[in-house]
Amino acid sequence: MQPQIIPNISVDCVIFGFDFETKSLNVLLIERFLKADEGNEPLVNDYVLTGYHTYEGETLDETASRVLKELTGLDNLYKKQFKVFGDPNRLMNDRDIIWAKNQNFNQRTITIAYYFLLQTHEVNLRNTEHKAQWFPVDKLPALGFDHKAIINEAYADLKEKSMYKPIIFELLPDKFTIKELQDTYEAILGTEIDNRNFRRKLITKKFIVKLDEKQVGISKKPSHLFMFSKDIYQKAYKENYLINI
Amino acid sequence: MQPQIIPNISVDCVIFGFDFETKSLNVLLIERFLKADEGNEPLVNDYVLTGYHTYEGETLDETASRVLKELTGLDNLYKKQFKVFGDPNRLMNDRDIIWAKNQNFNQRTITIAYYFLLQTHEVNLRNTEHKAQWFPVDKLPALGFDHKAIINEAYADLKEKSMYKPIIFELLPDKFTIKELQDTYEAILGTEIDNRNFRRKLITKKFIVKLDEKQVGISKKPSHLFMFSKDIYQKAYKENYLINI
Repeated sequence: MQPQIIPNISVDCVIFGFDFETKSLNVLLIERFLKADEGNEPLVNDYVLTGYHTYEGETLDETASRVLKELTGLDNLYKKQFKVFGDPNRLMNDRDIIWAKNQNFNQRTITIAYYFLLQTHEVNLRNTEHKAQWFPVDKLPALGFDHKAIINEAYADLKEKSMYKPIIFELLPDKFTIKELQDTYEAILGTEIDNRNFRRKLITKKFIVKLDEKQVGISKKPSHLFMFSKDIYQKAYKENYLINI
Repeated sequence: MQPQIIPNISVDCVIFGFDFETKSLNVLLIERFLKADEGNEPLVNDYVLTGYHTYEGETLDETASRVLKELTGLDNLYKKQFKVFGDPNRLMNDRDIIWAKNQNFNQRTITIAYYFLLQTHEVNLRNTEHKAQWFPVDKLPALGFDHKAIINEAYADLKEKSMYKPIIFELLPDKFTIKELQDTYEAILGTEIDNRNFRRKLITKKFIVKLDEKQVGISKKPSHLFMFSKDIYQKAYKENYLINI
């Protein structure tokens, strides 16, 4: 038996993935397609975030994890409930109206938006039922509903948090070079960072642990590898209230 | 005609007020009271946050502002939508069950939680229909539903944000002394701050503007007054991405 859904409450997931080859922050989107009568342009042909209604008896966090797992097969990722989108009319254009009619949506729906952080290579796109695709956060395709606004707010939140919380490490492999850390910061903040200042500042942090290992498979001079220690970070953070306004 | 409510969606407001006399961060709560048959203890006698259902055609922000205004008469305050509370069962104890029955609540309700920042003296408690009362955030009375969890999460969010965003100034009068600023930080962070470091650090910020005015009505040596310039802050902030993890 299918669990019963709550018709006016849904969860939408902004899945951010960092792509190390292109050094870009991407978002995973699924195709929304509705074909027209023969010979005509499709009625709807754009992209949306993955999301679904909450089930009765399910917490919102559980809904978000279920939606993520159904699309990507993944769980245990960094998950952040960042905002609710509940404007009375979230159908933004003709495509949304056609789509809503086709799907029998006829009710104001409030969506609780989450974002997830991972690396693009963790998701096997061929495994997904939906046509899912990565898009750079600054080169998004036409989007349905208010999903552009949802992505923009998720990105603003991620940007802000990355400046004072160690969430950037969720986008990096376990072992990374300082250059990779800097590339990731630059991609998220959308700005260049002074090389020497960055190294000097980050390398002194006790929670960025230098390993007795170097990159492999690099033809030029391989760099040292580092890892992030959550334990050391949490200990240091508890002891200090730093006002950095 | 009354607007139609959305039965399973509500907004709850954590109204934080800073009390300069007691130097404490307080929360405004309303009494929940249901009397029993004569001679018996009341069936319900505790406190809850102020909140109400969203109306059809109203945004969630509008619901929050309406709820605040109905209780306090105030608007244009700092408002932050910080989290959704939507566990399948938010009725926590016998009092909640008695109350829900009395009020004919029989549906899972999802509440969007906001917090507001002000100074306690801005609210005239005698003007409120409900029995409203300020309680220090660390000395809360018995609370209904999951409102204790909502207050705790609002406070954690406020604490964290106050370290890297200038929201503390929402709790202060327009003109303040450095000592008052420090008192407010200490109350929010729940910790003592080193006097000299604090002065040295804060006084150099260009957005904390020293006025050509001193305190009045002080018998001892009056201190200089300062104000916070939002314009200067925003300009400075836009120009710098500071990584302070």
